[in-house]
Amino acid sequence: MENFDFHVTTDIRFGKDRLDELPQVLNAFGKNVLLVYGGGSIKKSGLYDKLYEQFNRNDNNIVELAGVDPNPRIETVQQGVQLCKQNAIDVVLPVGGGSVIDCSKAIAASVFVSGDLWENFVLPKNYTGPALPIVTVLTLAATGSEMNGTCVISNMDAQIKLGVHGESLLPKVSFLDPTNTFSVNSYQTAAGSADILSHLMENYFNATPGTEVQDEIAEGLMKTVIKYLPIALEKPDDYTARANLMWASTLALNGLIGKGKKGSWSCHAMEHELSAFYDITHGVGLAMITPRWMAHILDEDTIPKFQRFAQEIWDVEEEEPKRAAEVGIQKLYEFFASCGIPMTLPEVGIQREENFEEMAQCAVAHSSISNQGFVPLHEEDVASIYRACMSESSFV
Amino acid sequence: MENFDFHVTTDIRFGKDRLDELPQVLNAFGKNVLLVYGGGSIKKSGLYDKLYEQFNRNDNNIVELAGVDPNPRIETVQQGVQLCKQNAIDVVLPVGGGSVIDCSKAIAASVFVSGDLWENFVLPKNYTGPALPIVTVLTLAATGSEMNGTCVISNMDAQIKLGVHGESLLPKVSFLDPTNTFSVNSYQTAAGSADILSHLMENYFNATPGTEVQDEIAEGLMKTVIKYLPIALEKPDDYTARANLMWASTLALNGLIGKGKKGSWSCHAMEHELSAFYDITHGVGLAMITPRWMAHILDEDTIPKFQRFAQEIWDVEEEEPKRAAEVGIQKLYEFFASCGIPMTLPEVGIQREENFEEMAQCAVAHSSISNQGFVPLHEEDVASIYRACMSESSFV
Repeated sequence: MENFDFHVTTDIRFGKDRLDELPQVLNAFGKNVLLVYGGGSIKKSGLYDKLYEQFNRNDNNIVELAGVDPNPRIETVQQGVQLCKQNAIDVVLPVGGGSVIDCSKAIAASVFVSGDLWENFVLPKNYTGPALPIVTVLTLAATGSEMNGTCVISNMDAQIKLGVHGESLLPKVSFLDPTNTFSVNSYQTAAGSADILSHLMENYFNATPGTEVQDEIAEGLMKTVIKYLPIALEKPDDYTARANLMWASTLALNGLIGKGKKGSWSCHAMEHELSAFYDITHGVGLAMITPRWMAHILDEDTIPKFQRFAQEIWDVEEEEPKRAAEVGIQKLYEFFASCGIPMTLPEVGIQREENFEEMAQCAVAHSSISNQGFVPLHEEDVASIYRACMSESSFV
Repeated sequence: MENFDFHVTTDIRFGKDRLDELPQVLNAFGKNVLLVYGGGSIKKSGLYDKLYEQFNRNDNNIVELAGVDPNPRIETVQQGVQLCKQNAIDVVLPVGGGSVIDCSKAIAASVFVSGDLWENFVLPKNYTGPALPIVTVLTLAATGSEMNGTCVISNMDAQIKLGVHGESLLPKVSFLDPTNTFSVNSYQTAAGSADILSHLMENYFNATPGTEVQDEIAEGLMKTVIKYLPIALEKPDDYTARANLMWASTLALNGLIGKGKKGSWSCHAMEHELSAFYDITHGVGLAMITPRWMAHILDEDTIPKFQRFAQEIWDVEEEEPKRAAEVGIQKLYEFFASCGIPMTLPEVGIQREENFEEMAQCAVAHSSISNQGFVPLHEEDVASIYRACMSESSFV
């Protein structure tokens, strides 16, 4: 196990019917609130009205930034920064999933950044400056952004999607009410869970030895997601399923699984290029890439961990190690497919391979997968994994 | 899953050779430090000298409170409070295991408590006042006190041992260096791990439905402890074993396993009376009581969870549920015994049953096990469990 710091100070308010705590939480920072949300699903679900009940009784001054896209754009960040400056915003309140929270983090920090935001905030990747306080109301179990200091921002002109980390980006308070995810449709529910599983697997398949605590917790959270995603798809208002998915999503990326390990995430680096070039749903891209990546890197050195994955997560009884590993990968693939996730690129509208070489170059250039991946990946590896996503796969 | 708050702000510095960060950490609070430690093992191990290297280069004013007992006493807390007041202490620095940290927490808070400390700090059980900042250097993987807001204090005159919880008791920073546990002897290593397992099991065997995240993480941490305790006993300086035990001990009681659940801990309530009446090692008392408690409460309602425990933790293949549950309990008992933990009360010097009825009364009176236990326990249950600890047990 590597040395690490663990200092995750977000105040989590988990459970039903806790929005009446919001005024007191906001008042710790001020009355002027930037409310950030996405496509308006919070209006349909009734959450928007419930928020305004609290704002009204609390005399808040609310400024809205609506319409944040999935894969949030640097332009939206710029727009939010302007609103903060014009309205002397005291606290940023994202109500939504990871995209809305990530966009809000970038806004909260960029208020203090001068010059070009892409150049001065995103490209350096590590932000050490201050940020406005962030309070989140989560509506999608997926990214874990509600309890970490990372945001991912896209520049569609340059076709680049990059993560920025900074201590000041950590939300001060996050409201995690599972009932706010009852109205998430099947596609987004499945894609969100694929994202959770990916966070767990990216850290689980790692070369640092002696990290049993992290690996056991990762296995437990994977099993939880695999148990409850089908239940949430079958019965979207199953509280227990939604609660376990939500808390698993938060814990999957708050440091608990990744701290104490070295190395670089492979599938996210590859998926970021898919999203940057084609703007597809992040979790769907991850679900497609992950089993092909696993099959691509399966060799003598990696088989033992994949065999453990097969046994612990998928109850594979096959004893021959390589065969067991392959069955585990197949089970993962079939699980994603059974949850309604499109498992080939043509199904999400990517019919031709023309950009794969350039995307592979970018994936390697924008990350450290070529030297710090679980298995180092070079451009030809990445392109080959993209190509494997063009048709259905079988791993056994 | 029940609603819960999770807000654990301790700054964890995990790993080897990090004491050079101590001056900066202390300076955030002030120069006057109360150094609290136990029987002097930190002098033998060399840690004491390493601390003074840092103090000297940092111009700290150090006041020492040495000789804190296991099951720390209210008298020692009073002594520490006096030292704090006389020396205008800015920060309390426990260097040791749970007893030293718990004593320090009580001191840090009691500086702000007027009148009788037992009456006004311990008996109310919930402390809402301020406390001096606490920075810990952990030397024993056991109690989890390094990342929670609870302390357990004993009054040997009154034969009472009680837990107090308060937000301000949460350590600000905790240094977790696994090498500081290399010199812990076999007995204390095993007792510490029994304490970790007990924290996990007390929360795992709980009647709140739908807490898969918590239960899966608990199982993962149990398996980690069961894997690494024998290795640490065999090879006390095995870094991986010590690191995993240490991080597991912290996570076992920082809220991750217990939040989202209702109910009361049964074995700790019973063990507290054993320690209060006979001053035995906490983890040893827990190891003795736990399997007998399990066997005592095994019935139609509880069998499914014990069967899961047997299957997941001990790989029991027996399919008949009650029989599987019993084999799991037997395996736990044998594991503790195989690690050198005395498993009967006579082995720790308790030869007669004379106090059991009174202890059972106290266990029920000082806790809520009679109405909030996993299975409610009354005085006759508790006395029966104590009696079962008088001789060796077999559960199959």
